[in-house]
Amino acid sequence: MLDVIRPLVIANTTKIVLLSLDGLAGLPRPETGLSEMETARLPNLAALAQEAACGLIRHVAPGITPGSGPGHLGLFGYDPLQYQVGRGVLEALGIEFDLRGGDVAARGNFCTVDAQGLITDRRAGRISTETCIRLTDRLREIRLPGVELFVEPVKEHRFVLVLRGPSLSGHLSETDPQVLGKPPLPVKPLEAGAARTAELVNAFIAEARRRLADAAPANMVLLRGFDQLPELPRFPAIFGLRAGAIAAYPMYRGLARLVGMDVLKTGATFADELGTLRQHWSSYDFFFLHYKDTDKAGEDGDFDAKVAALERLDASVPEVRALEPDVFVVTGDHASPSVLAGHGWQPVPVLIHSRYAGADPVRAFTERACAAGTLGVFPSHHLMPLVMANALRLTKFGA
Amino acid sequence: MLDVIRPLVIANTTKIVLLSLDGLAGLPRPETGLSEMETARLPNLAALAQEAACGLIRHVAPGITPGSGPGHLGLFGYDPLQYQVGRGVLEALGIEFDLRGGDVAARGNFCTVDAQGLITDRRAGRISTETCIRLTDRLREIRLPGVELFVEPVKEHRFVLVLRGPSLSGHLSETDPQVLGKPPLPVKPLEAGAARTAELVNAFIAEARRRLADAAPANMVLLRGFDQLPELPRFPAIFGLRAGAIAAYPMYRGLARLVGMDVLKTGATFADELGTLRQHWSSYDFFFLHYKDTDKAGEDGDFDAKVAALERLDASVPEVRALEPDVFVVTGDHASPSVLAGHGWQPVPVLIHSRYAGADPVRAFTERACAAGTLGVFPSHHLMPLVMANALRLTKFGA
Repeated sequence: MLDVIRPLVIANTTKIVLLSLDGLAGLPRPETGLSEMETARLPNLAALAQEAACGLIRHVAPGITPGSGPGHLGLFGYDPLQYQVGRGVLEALGIEFDLRGGDVAARGNFCTVDAQGLITDRRAGRISTETCIRLTDRLREIRLPGVELFVEPVKEHRFVLVLRGPSLSGHLSETDPQVLGKPPLPVKPLEAGAARTAELVNAFIAEARRRLADAAPANMVLLRGFDQLPELPRFPAIFGLRAGAIAAYPMYRGLARLVGMDVLKTGATFADELGTLRQHWSSYDFFFLHYKDTDKAGEDGDFDAKVAALERLDASVPEVRALEPDVFVVTGDHASPSVLAGHGWQPVPVLIHSRYAGADPVRAFTERACAAGTLGVFPSHHLMPLVMANALRLTKFGA
Repeated sequence: MLDVIRPLVIANTTKIVLLSLDGLAGLPRPETGLSEMETARLPNLAALAQEAACGLIRHVAPGITPGSGPGHLGLFGYDPLQYQVGRGVLEALGIEFDLRGGDVAARGNFCTVDAQGLITDRRAGRISTETCIRLTDRLREIRLPGVELFVEPVKEHRFVLVLRGPSLSGHLSETDPQVLGKPPLPVKPLEAGAARTAELVNAFIAEARRRLADAAPANMVLLRGFDQLPELPRFPAIFGLRAGAIAAYPMYRGLARLVGMDVLKTGATFADELGTLRQHWSSYDFFFLHYKDTDKAGEDGDFDAKVAALERLDASVPEVRALEPDVFVVTGDHASPSVLAGHGWQPVPVLIHSRYAGADPVRAFTERACAAGTLGVFPSHHLMPLVMANALRLTKFGA
């Protein structure tokens, strides 16, 4: 699809805002039969939907619950089944680690092993983030021949391991046996060129075990999701857009950087993000604007908090509209229904507001209303071509 | 898809009419919020829609604006992304040039160059069609070794160049540098076997320059879109249909001929086309009937003219129904919203009227009404299998 789009791209001065409401879609609360979006008072989003083309986005495939990585890659125009990003890489992006081409990243867990080396707790009793920081300091002092080593704390028992050096491979097996009562597995190479990297990682694990011997319950590590940065075509080059990303959370800044967007410095709140949007309005053609609160509430299983998060966001919509973007897209990277208290596989409402988006019977921005929209249910990586068309930035295909 | 269909085709005596309303879909006029289809009084199409299955056709992919070539190939059952037709070939089809397998066709522009040979106007001030005809006469006298040469005027500054002979290749680079102040580029071969064709074309260009030296502003040529006829599976063979095409405009006759339909002699008006339909009714199973006025008005940005063109067409619908086709399909090859004054990417309404098309809530033939139809939004190359099924001309898949 990107190969079809690229030669059709033409220059224009139109401006695009892609607002991603993280974990937007929900499910009805059994007591009322209404979802979070249906319960919330969202007059500004409803007004926008009335002038927009609406539909539902399926991010990966029917029944597949997207993580934040594939969820956003789809919104950026990349088929998430074609462009897969390993978990180690996502974990590194999530802490905004400056991962470089050739680096191998893995997700690390501190865990507990008994005197025989058998795992008794795969998460080391969820140690505090403070303890995690202290223990990663110990691991950071490990030296391996020919490679630079980074050990970065994430949260509680989680950390990131990065190896930097020549000729490394991310094709390695995981050490987590996924059950208790067994020892961590050795890392095995999964391709011919990965033997040396496997040896290096096994040497790291052996040394980590020595240095953590007195640190129970966090007296051992498990490593998963080894991978390297994927080679993604760059978003600004594909779409001919000066693209700026505005996100308070590091994971989303990392994903935007991964596809080559400029990550704009912003603050911790959505109000800060809106200030950043205004400040850079004239310098970019495309803004990726991220709102986290909807997902947080959904993942917490807090229906009312998600309703409140939606209503807070709705109140900010006029501030974006005041900038008069030529194309204003509101959608999300995945569902986070409060009744699931986590990500969901449900398709996510989308509205495309532009002068040329077309007539639409949709009168409210909800899951059910958008199901009747003219955009239908469509794969997330079809969104960017639609957005580009609405921005009058694509010429026609064939004479 | 065609490979799936072909072995399922069975004989029947049913008759099919595919009416293509060129550039059918539109967009609301801001003053009224109603599209051209919603503004027009279309009682006959509405009556048809009430008894038909309705939906929206997406011709190439979301956000992609189809040209007339891919737009119609999709309606004929060919995935336009799989079966691409070069611009030179389309230009030749557009003037009904009898292009043959192996011929290489290119789009030509007369242009203006200064004394240094640098381009000062890529369209030679849009010379009159009369001048174009006079100058192509000059170019037609150029002789090249081992190939036959055709230079055919199109309109204003545009012409078609065709080379006929053995072992030619259409894999050639273009000569138009797309900017002013540069000289035309030499043609380069883009595959191993194209070197001789490139030499021939460069010789043609050099000779054209000599013969046009005194013809300013049209004192040079630019050549683009070199290509050869694609090898398309033939429509009558795939679908087991005696297929007749009725179109007043040469481009659409050319597209029908490209897929192997019989092109029926007709007049300049839609009334002539309907006469041709009646005349040949007993001799064909499938009729492709083309109506141009909707697209012309849309491309002119004339909302009222498009409404009028729709109403004129609507008045003719009973004449088609009087013939009692078993399957009557009404759709278009792409959108031409008046507010865009050109082709658009918006999906196009479709109705399939047959005894077996199924129940449908749609009560009007408009973009919004069809969005709620049981056919949903679907790729254009899925239309022909649906049509064949409704004509009871497909057996079941698997026992």
